[in-house]
Amino acid sequence: MAPHPQRRRRSEDRREQIIDEALKTFADNGYHGASIAEIAARCGLSQPGLLHYFPNKAALLAAVLDYRDRLDYDRLGFSQQLRGKDALERLAVLVEHNMHVPGLVRLFTVVTSEAVTTDHPARDWVVNRYRTFETYLAGALEDGITDGTIRPEVDTRAVARQIFAMMDGLQLQWLLEPDSVDMAQLFRAYVDGLIERISA
Amino acid sequence: MAPHPQRRRRSEDRREQIIDEALKTFADNGYHGASIAEIAARCGLSQPGLLHYFPNKAALLAAVLDYRDRLDYDRLGFSQQLRGKDALERLAVLVEHNMHVPGLVRLFTVVTSEAVTTDHPARDWVVNRYRTFETYLAGALEDGITDGTIRPEVDTRAVARQIFAMMDGLQLQWLLEPDSVDMAQLFRAYVDGLIERISA
Repeated sequence: MAPHPQRRRRSEDRREQIIDEALKTFADNGYHGASIAEIAARCGLSQPGLLHYFPNKAALLAAVLDYRDRLDYDRLGFSQQLRGKDALERLAVLVEHNMHVPGLVRLFTVVTSEAVTTDHPARDWVVNRYRTFETYLAGALEDGITDGTIRPEVDTRAVARQIFAMMDGLQLQWLLEPDSVDMAQLFRAYVDGLIERISA
Repeated sequence: MAPHPQRRRRSEDRREQIIDEALKTFADNGYHGASIAEIAARCGLSQPGLLHYFPNKAALLAAVLDYRDRLDYDRLGFSQQLRGKDALERLAVLVEHNMHVPGLVRLFTVVTSEAVTTDHPARDWVVNRYRTFETYLAGALEDGITDGTIRPEVDTRAVARQIFAMMDGLQLQWLLEPDSVDMAQLFRAYVDGLIERISA
């Protein structure tokens, strides 16, 4: 028998609330520093009550990262198959957007770096994310070579890796000093220089 | 009365050993995930034995970061007052060197990112480090403008921020996939492109 529609609705709302509070807690304290007890308390739940939805802290982190990923894939334009310089322009817009969602950026910065510690549950997720993004962006640049807007000798995978490195590094500096580091402007200047260098 | 020379020597050796083991433990587990008990055990000390040298975990992290800093300042050429492109070349050499000291790199990546979490004891250290490096490198680039090797319209502070962002981001990707990400080569390619763009 299917669950009562209203109960299902309430259960989904509860899952969303837990993911939302978990995201904030991981961003505040990192994965290692976050506790299920604290997340449960933020949700007004008992620990067993929360564990009914997510069996452990690692499963909760996975749910949070999946949620963040869906947002990013949309914003990166994965679904629109942007080509060549359009993909780079989109990234500059994404970085501007990120300045309005410091909590999400902080989650990402903390968890991706923490993933290099021993036995971190997000390590595979982080590695796959870089590979996926590299493949996506290198592909977009290859398309630019095909349509003659990007120089054929450009090492598209190397450029993709460099671009995500620049994004990550600027995010960290911005999180540390939001009032004096304008990451959107710094990234835009980098992308402009890059476009100049790789344009056919 | 001054302490007996041999006892002082033994005490200094012990401090070095503690810093060395603490560095590895922070790199393995992050600051939040590291425990004084584990560091003491690695040194063959009791907890009170270790706390005799460093009163708490934050003091121990500060000592580790100071140690790492001294290494970096030397390698960055702070003492030699490198000018213009020489400072950029030195950074490329530093990144090559870093591929041989993954433990130090991991410590840096984990702690600097963790510093954006709430109430992290290394936050001020990290913020000051970026400011110091920015000032140093922007100064070297200004010298390049003065001696006519760098174009006068270059925003030296922005370029300095971008360079350290690229270093940090590539370090993270390399730590995640040391076998497939050649951070020295990726950084070198970035610096070569940058030098081309800012040269007078």
